[in-house]
Amino acid sequence: MSRFLSSLYASLEEYVPGEQPQDKKYVKLNTNESPFPPSPGVIAAVTDEEVRKLCLYSDPESKALKQKLAESYSLKSENVFVANGSDDILNFAFMAFARENGAVFPDISYGFYPVFADLYNVDAKIIPLEEDFSIDYKKYLSSGRMVVIANPNAPTGKVIAKSEIEEIIKTNSDNIVLIDEAYVDFGAESVTDLVDKYDNLLVVGTFSKSRSMAGARLGFAFANTEIIKDLEKIKYSTNPYNINRLTQLMGVKALEEQEYYDKNCAIIAENREFTVSELEKIGFTVIPSKANFIFAKHSSLSGEKIYLKLKEKGVLIRHFTAERIKDHNRITIGTKEQMMILIEKLIEIIGEEEK
Amino acid sequence: MSRFLSSLYASLEEYVPGEQPQDKKYVKLNTNESPFPPSPGVIAAVTDEEVRKLCLYSDPESKALKQKLAESYSLKSENVFVANGSDDILNFAFMAFARENGAVFPDISYGFYPVFADLYNVDAKIIPLEEDFSIDYKKYLSSGRMVVIANPNAPTGKVIAKSEIEEIIKTNSDNIVLIDEAYVDFGAESVTDLVDKYDNLLVVGTFSKSRSMAGARLGFAFANTEIIKDLEKIKYSTNPYNINRLTQLMGVKALEEQEYYDKNCAIIAENREFTVSELEKIGFTVIPSKANFIFAKHSSLSGEKIYLKLKEKGVLIRHFTAERIKDHNRITIGTKEQMMILIEKLIEIIGEEEK
Repeated sequence: MSRFLSSLYASLEEYVPGEQPQDKKYVKLNTNESPFPPSPGVIAAVTDEEVRKLCLYSDPESKALKQKLAESYSLKSENVFVANGSDDILNFAFMAFARENGAVFPDISYGFYPVFADLYNVDAKIIPLEEDFSIDYKKYLSSGRMVVIANPNAPTGKVIAKSEIEEIIKTNSDNIVLIDEAYVDFGAESVTDLVDKYDNLLVVGTFSKSRSMAGARLGFAFANTEIIKDLEKIKYSTNPYNINRLTQLMGVKALEEQEYYDKNCAIIAENREFTVSELEKIGFTVIPSKANFIFAKHSSLSGEKIYLKLKEKGVLIRHFTAERIKDHNRITIGTKEQMMILIEKLIEIIGEEEK
Repeated sequence: MSRFLSSLYASLEEYVPGEQPQDKKYVKLNTNESPFPPSPGVIAAVTDEEVRKLCLYSDPESKALKQKLAESYSLKSENVFVANGSDDILNFAFMAFARENGAVFPDISYGFYPVFADLYNVDAKIIPLEEDFSIDYKKYLSSGRMVVIANPNAPTGKVIAKSEIEEIIKTNSDNIVLIDEAYVDFGAESVTDLVDKYDNLLVVGTFSKSRSMAGARLGFAFANTEIIKDLEKIKYSTNPYNINRLTQLMGVKALEEQEYYDKNCAIIAENREFTVSELEKIGFTVIPSKANFIFAKHSSLSGEKIYLKLKEKGVLIRHFTAERIKDHNRITIGTKEQMMILIEKLIEIIGEEEK
């Protein structure tokens, strides 16, 4: 660090995103991207004429996009917030809603939550997942803190029941309950319809996963009007024009072609079940997942070995070093073809190691 | 505000960007955008194939873009930071470098500086511009704070000499000196070449103005390696994938066609001198500007009246309400045709009011 950096950040450990190698072509199963391109209408919308208009700022209010999101999710525009990826929104939420009371989240979840907590000096209560990596919702009742839960959870892929989330919301009425639904479209149940019922619920979503727009940067959130106004205040105090002009346009088009994305999600779910069953045949234990990734551990090979050997063979998966999960790896579900390459390479690795 | 918002932000007044009306077509001279589209190579680079790849995350390290910026400005990649617009970088700078010692900036400058200061509880020393709206550099020597100066300044368009900035840098060696060069390409002198000489200089730039990419969101900064690392730390602790994939590609292409943008800047400078001389003929006083905007006051009509009447007639300019500048308006320099419409409408308004 430079001698100018505030001492507030002296011990801050930044988030480490999955590798994005630019040099070599990998079968990329490490950052939970969609293997499918954006829908035809999204691609068609990016005309030369629209690119020429990039000399003009985007609409900082994102009116058209908010309106379309509201329609798609049966809400009102004033219940919708949009930002430069869902990380942007999680960042704002920790900044705005957890400074006084602190936050609570599981030990094994999205690795960015503790970074945001550190960044804003938020007191974080970390609750270990159960032995089977499930979330015991009873441990989050009446917490006195902002509750942050990913559903499905990452990197496990496990879901928490809507009725359990509702109990958490009800018993934490003096704090925000943030449900991170980045992966909800692959088989979990959304709590978006509870936004009208509870004024402390903040649901966060993204176009990066099921809607094939990771590189376009678009996240959204649903909540009570007052919470949305707070998020807008933070946005207008940091970076009002935070969403690319083309991205706003593409977001609207994507929502108009939802059936394309629904079909992709169904294919991913099918490939997921195929992959799980193949992995189980070769000695893996896989946590039941409703996301576009699985969390798998081999009976004899270490998580690190599998990760490194696969990388050598041109397949990237995500390895974590935290003690509790170091022998699991998170594997993104791609196309059937990609999953077959993965399995073929794993069979090779197991053969080589058992020699 | 909701009952959940941290009391830290209770009195925060967010930044108010210029109007971006989505309904009606205006001659838009209010947010200092370029009237010219991005260069041909930028437009050609956005192929269907590249749009299809938006399902993948962008390179969080922005290696190709940083390399190209470094080449273009005769620096090394490790002296370059890129982000989602220069507002993103200003935000990070206030967050990272001004918490302990505070910041100092002029009373009349980019209206976002005091917002960032408020947001992070940064003690801000505000120094009034001189009578003629110039910056007296002597008032910024040995300030004991992070110094923030826009050159050219906004909304005045006035420049501060490079030798004066160097004195400020030298005498503030224990603090960051941030020079916001958003408008430098329209006629001011950059201090980028001083980055190698002083470890406390942070130069901030943008692709939004001279490079016609306001809607694509791309800002950059040059500084000593250690400062860049600090900015990266903040970025990786808030939103690592902050730049759109297409935007990174377009940024590289734009830098390959610098002569196109240089030509546009020369046209803007020419249109600026034309506009100033026409405005002076009809009773305006205009501050000498080296930016893509001018700051002008009429001898008899109030700033608000001119702004409102022009808006009625389909021309948008930027009006500020702060006492000291309420009779000035900031007018973006567009095409010759746009400026002729502005002048024609102003002549109409003056005629109507003098009846």
